[in-house]
Amino acid sequence: MHTIKIIPVIGLPIIKNGDDLGRLICEAAAKQGTPIENGDIIVVTHVIVSRSEGNVINLDEVIPSEFAKNIAEETGKDPALVEVILRESKSIVRIGGGHIIAETKHGFICANAGVDRSNVPGERNVAPLPKDPDLSARRIRQRIKEISGREVAVIISDTHGRPLRNGEINVAIGVAGIKPIRDRRGEKDLFGYMLKVKQTAIADELSSAAELVIGQADEGIPVAIIRGYQYERSEDATSKDLIRPKEKDLFI
Amino acid sequence: MHTIKIIPVIGLPIIKNGDDLGRLICEAAAKQGTPIENGDIIVVTHVIVSRSEGNVINLDEVIPSEFAKNIAEETGKDPALVEVILRESKSIVRIGGGHIIAETKHGFICANAGVDRSNVPGERNVAPLPKDPDLSARRIRQRIKEISGREVAVIISDTHGRPLRNGEINVAIGVAGIKPIRDRRGEKDLFGYMLKVKQTAIADELSSAAELVIGQADEGIPVAIIRGYQYERSEDATSKDLIRPKEKDLFI
Repeated sequence: MHTIKIIPVIGLPIIKNGDDLGRLICEAAAKQGTPIENGDIIVVTHVIVSRSEGNVINLDEVIPSEFAKNIAEETGKDPALVEVILRESKSIVRIGGGHIIAETKHGFICANAGVDRSNVPGERNVAPLPKDPDLSARRIRQRIKEISGREVAVIISDTHGRPLRNGEINVAIGVAGIKPIRDRRGEKDLFGYMLKVKQTAIADELSSAAELVIGQADEGIPVAIIRGYQYERSEDATSKDLIRPKEKDLFI
Repeated sequence: MHTIKIIPVIGLPIIKNGDDLGRLICEAAAKQGTPIENGDIIVVTHVIVSRSEGNVINLDEVIPSEFAKNIAEETGKDPALVEVILRESKSIVRIGGGHIIAETKHGFICANAGVDRSNVPGERNVAPLPKDPDLSARRIRQRIKEISGREVAVIISDTHGRPLRNGEINVAIGVAGIKPIRDRRGEKDLFGYMLKVKQTAIADELSSAAELVIGQADEGIPVAIIRGYQYERSEDATSKDLIRPKEKDLFI
């Protein structure tokens, strides 16, 4: 029997521009008695990554375009916030009910192009997604290796609403050291039937699992360690594998 | 620090028609040294629920309609399998690339209306979704209470492809004893910002977390125990809360 543990990383300081996330995670994990181990998967919420990278925008310093003002009027949103959302977007999927669903420059389709207002210090500050979440994940992974000597995987997660189903779940927007999809086509089931369609989005499942401790009432937990899950290592992993091109989408 | 554990339930027999799943789960959990505890969440894959309920269909006994034959020709699928899929469906969302995306009678939109060919004994046998997955979950929960005296939540899970993103994840298609969505609107974040949009689909996140042990290489693990997650109890929970009506869907 092989139990998986989801360990919240508590005691991290409020993350600010220039902070060394890899070091802070190693220190907090050690301090709480669960030092980083080989094979751990470290799930980090995007907002602290953006904050550590100085990717925080003060809305008072943003001059909204006319188009942003139009959409702000339609949605009831702050025009400066709409401007930031538009700057992060390469297309708008839908506007309605006060919401903007946009495709980010990375290719993620999500509400407000992933621009987060919550858990950002400063009343007028917002945090867009990291500019290159895979690179952010690789940097954190590298720092953890330098500091602890441990080989881990790192996933940057974000909370996404989704088509067809109510409620948000956490998904992976950046990965390092782990293949985000486990391809099981060709394997046989318990009764010898060969699996024809089976590609598990484990990076998304791991992000959702981490959210069970990250999203708990005790706020200020932006990092979780998932321990005991056997995953396929990869040095050139990318979260782009998780994005389905529109022309291949049968659902929409 | 509050760690969550995902415990695979090993040693279950091949489930067949009439089997008492609640009893078998209690026995297997006790035998492996992790007896059911109060507050556990038991995640059960739908295929063993369907098998225990006798909800298995031998394709040799199915006479395909003319429409089923047409779709079989277009998709390259077995006409009898297509007939079963159509019987489970209330609408077809899309047919293409050899796939059928359908809306089940329950309202779930998924490939093949959830009819599973894998992990069903008998070369010509398939397992549709349970007829009423919430009722199935409630029955298992009730039996676990009768046998172990423990108050648990039960989630029936299924593997779903999804719009916009590659790879499948596990989601909840039946729930008992647990509110499937955690509504956090109105709560404040770390910096006092009030959350306006935050309804977490925890039943889906728990299903995905469970899949990390259920979907591992060691086949024959159809059940997981999630221990240590604080959830909102509910006696009248329904998985219907997780289905977003099309007219309210901004993504598609």
